[in-house]
Amino acid sequence: MKSVKVVGLLASPRRYGSSFKGLMLALKAAERFGAETEWYHLYQMDIKPCLGCVSEDIKACKYPCIIKDDMKKIYDALVNSDGFIIATPVYWYSPSGVMKNVIDRLTALENMIHIDGHSWLDGKVGGFIATGNDSGAMFAIAQLMSIMNSMGVVIPPWSMAYTNELGDPLENSAFVTDSLNVGRTVVMMIKAMRGEKVDRWYDPELYDWYEKELKEWLINLVKEEEAKAEKPWKDPNWLNSK
Amino acid sequence: MKSVKVVGLLASPRRYGSSFKGLMLALKAAERFGAETEWYHLYQMDIKPCLGCVSEDIKACKYPCIIKDDMKKIYDALVNSDGFIIATPVYWYSPSGVMKNVIDRLTALENMIHIDGHSWLDGKVGGFIATGNDSGAMFAIAQLMSIMNSMGVVIPPWSMAYTNELGDPLENSAFVTDSLNVGRTVVMMIKAMRGEKVDRWYDPELYDWYEKELKEWLINLVKEEEAKAEKPWKDPNWLNSK
Amino acid sequence: MKSVKVVGLLASPRRYGSSFKGLMLALKAAERFGAETEWYHLYQMDIKPCLGCVSEDIKACKYPCIIKDDMKKIYDALVNSDGFIIATPVYWYSPSGVMKNVIDRLTALENMIHIDGHSWLDGKVGGFIATGNDSGAMFAIAQLMSIMNSMGVVIPPWSMAYTNELGDPLENSAFVTDSLNVGRTVVMMIKAMRGEKVDRWYDPELYDWYEKELKEWLINLVKEEEAKAEKPWKDPNWLNSK
Amino acid sequence: MKSVKVVGLLASPRRYGSSFKGLMLALKAAERFGAETEWYHLYQMDIKPCLGCVSEDIKACKYPCIIKDDMKKIYDALVNSDGFIIATPVYWYSPSGVMKNVIDRLTALENMIHIDGHSWLDGKVGGFIATGNDSGAMFAIAQLMSIMNSMGVVIPPWSMAYTNELGDPLENSAFVTDSLNVGRTVVMMIKAMRGEKVDRWYDPELYDWYEKELKEWLINLVKEEEAKAEKPWKDPNWLNSK
Repeated sequence: MKSVKVVGLLASPRRYGSSFKGLMLALKAAERFGAETEWYHLYQMDIKPCLGCVSEDIKACKYPCIIKDDMKKIYDALVNSDGFIIATPVYWYSPSGVMKNVIDRLTALENMIHIDGHSWLDGKVGGFIATGNDSGAMFAIAQLMSIMNSMGVVIPPWSMAYTNELGDPLENSAFVTDSLNVGRTVVMMIKAMRGEKVDRWYDPELYDWYEKELKEWLINLVKEEEAKAEKPWKDPNWLNSK
Repeated sequence: MKSVKVVGLLASPRRYGSSFKGLMLALKAAERFGAETEWYHLYQMDIKPCLGCVSEDIKACKYPCIIKDDMKKIYDALVNSDGFIIATPVYWYSPSGVMKNVIDRLTALENMIHIDGHSWLDGKVGGFIATGNDSGAMFAIAQLMSIMNSMGVVIPPWSMAYTNELGDPLENSAFVTDSLNVGRTVVMMIKAMRGEKVDRWYDPELYDWYEKELKEWLINLVKEEEAKAEKPWKDPNWLNSK
Repeated sequence: MKSVKVVGLLASPRRYGSSFKGLMLALKAAERFGAETEWYHLYQMDIKPCLGCVSEDIKACKYPCIIKDDMKKIYDALVNSDGFIIATPVYWYSPSGVMKNVIDRLTALENMIHIDGHSWLDGKVGGFIATGNDSGAMFAIAQLMSIMNSMGVVIPPWSMAYTNELGDPLENSAFVTDSLNVGRTVVMMIKAMRGEKVDRWYDPELYDWYEKELKEWLINLVKEEEAKAEKPWKDPNWLNSK
Repeated sequence: MKSVKVVGLLASPRRYGSSFKGLMLALKAAERFGAETEWYHLYQMDIKPCLGCVSEDIKACKYPCIIKDDMKKIYDALVNSDGFIIATPVYWYSPSGVMKNVIDRLTALENMIHIDGHSWLDGKVGGFIATGNDSGAMFAIAQLMSIMNSMGVVIPPWSMAYTNELGDPLENSAFVTDSLNVGRTVVMMIKAMRGEKVDRWYDPELYDWYEKELKEWLINLVKEEEAKAEKPWKDPNWLNSK
């Protein structure tokens, strides 16, 4: 049986915050339903801003981008995947600037339509997690969905999870269940497109699985990650040293 | 073989304007790829605004809505469909108010999740056409996509067509090709979810089909419809008399 | 001294719900800082959808709209005002369909730019309140702001209040304070444009005023309004009988 | 008489493209109506992404940001200004990633509300230019407006200019006139808030001024800038070498 590959993109500076928690849940659920997963912490990568070459020459923008940096890893991971999950903090009602730079650079995959006739993201399946402590999550998700669909991405049912209030999102059972379902729905859609029947698209009972089998694991993982974090806000040279 | 049913919703006052043209193209393409289609002209129906019953009682909002009007026809058409295509003019960067009233009323299908455990739009496939003579089309489409996905709708690749400039959209080959592809991608996704292999999601050659087989038909249809239109802006009592 | 006139538009079916509460607070604050106020309950008015006449003839859309209905009252109130406050429930991340119909119809004031050279909303000052129990408030407010600014409206600092969670918004001190400040900032901007100095644009101490002088009044008002409400969801013929 | 200071932010990689043209027009108009101006080319500055310190401690985010880079120049320029104009390319219906990083970092000015009681952008006046060759400009502008207003910024009437089609925007008289008016309306609002009477907010006749006095100057400036540009898409090490 053909494997299912799902890539996670974490667009938060923290690998122990709310976006991280949502992404870990989504990827665990993706695995439970048969996917192989890998994920990237965008803030720890060297990804430069897009130079907008298409405005000079429609064919100038193509894979691999003329800028040589870690974006190559993201390009290759996405091209080799069947789907992906973006987890971003909500900064001012939108994805983080780091995520936006990655989006701008993804033009090199989408614009292959002008080189070999199809977007290299065509038919991939996308899921979206946006976390914040105030309003703006759906505004950010609407941006992500419309952008990704314009690049050829399939949006499966209920392909979103978000928070818009203070507090640990792991105490928010709707967020936990929705995050798990983001991972599940991405995999189910990949399978549906291969002819597998999907009985239902949203499974509220995944929360029970979280309580029984994931909760302790995730809380420990978050603690470990937080303990070894370089705490950038205490060491502002952190990013510079990358 | 199981049939494929696609419903069109026209949210423009005119059944001969840009949204109409886009919708006719999308439905023709849907038929070409195997769908049965039907469509509704929302402006000629009696559809009242949502009363927001969920804010009183989460279980008060369900199919059929307590308001007895033509929305029942839309509910039933969508429930019996495999997918739908919304064609709306861009009024102030958003769908028309008439379309927004329909969206608000669709809560009665989505909210069935609190009655029988699943949204009645769950797994339907959606496509979107937005026409205007200025900026705002993608803003309107991002609203439609994020809303419909929140109701359980699948968004297939390239599920959008739009105009943002003056002039006859039938002179705009990108719009024509995109509109045809909206119909095609909705049907392809319905079939993909039934196990049919999709080689590519966007077919630029549909434009040739339009030139050879659809153009004359559509131009004539538009003329006929315009000739028999009640020209509401010349008879402001048009709507009142409904 | 020239008077300051502020108009409130309530776009919720309920005149005792969250939008109503926010609007009453904003208008009370507007009065405290010198404004005369009046407000309209859009759901209890006969306001038909826009026919998009501009798409036929750029000069066909003008005050008064060819459709004869209660929109005339809104046109006249806004034209005679110095500013306005829109209070809408968040229905699917956007203003209600009833509000959207009013926005579409306001084209008749904005489009006067093609008749007598200026928008009749030019230089009016706008404030925005959006209430819901989930995400989407800022998405709705961004729509309102960008639309109104495109019609010539001034957006003063902090011109927004919203809720995005369940519960009585009067228990949410941020919402109460923000709503009061929406009324205050609209009036302050009107005065600033007349040469009055504004020391600060957001006054957190208005909450104390609410607790001391407004809370009891508002709770009673809400009770009275709720008692006499026609409870449309119990009588679905309510709207039909208008 | 107190001076009027307006800052321009160019968020395009090119200092000779559409955003540049719009910004130069807006700043020239601002000068004509009495402002001193300066502008920054964000792509040529070292501005790192926001670390989201507020999510750790609401008081951790303040001026000057813990990250030491060129953002300090932007902070100081804005704090010392009366208003600003953002000119960004439309990358995927949103401001460029570089602009988004600047927005995220501006939290350090806005969040001063938790340090000394008011946002340091409070009462500044903002204008917005977004240029692209496809749909999405108003989506980008709605993001900028709602974000900036949430930081305390005043949005004057008609505070926007945009393109959404291919071609030289200087051949687009609406864009030229709108860009000039962005500069004018920002200055007029600053003056209005100082008590000066504003007869009208949009001046269509500025286009004549452009034709007579600005066109040749601007075309030459663009040529000069393009000639000396480092053409990053021909030298992808350009950014790395900064």
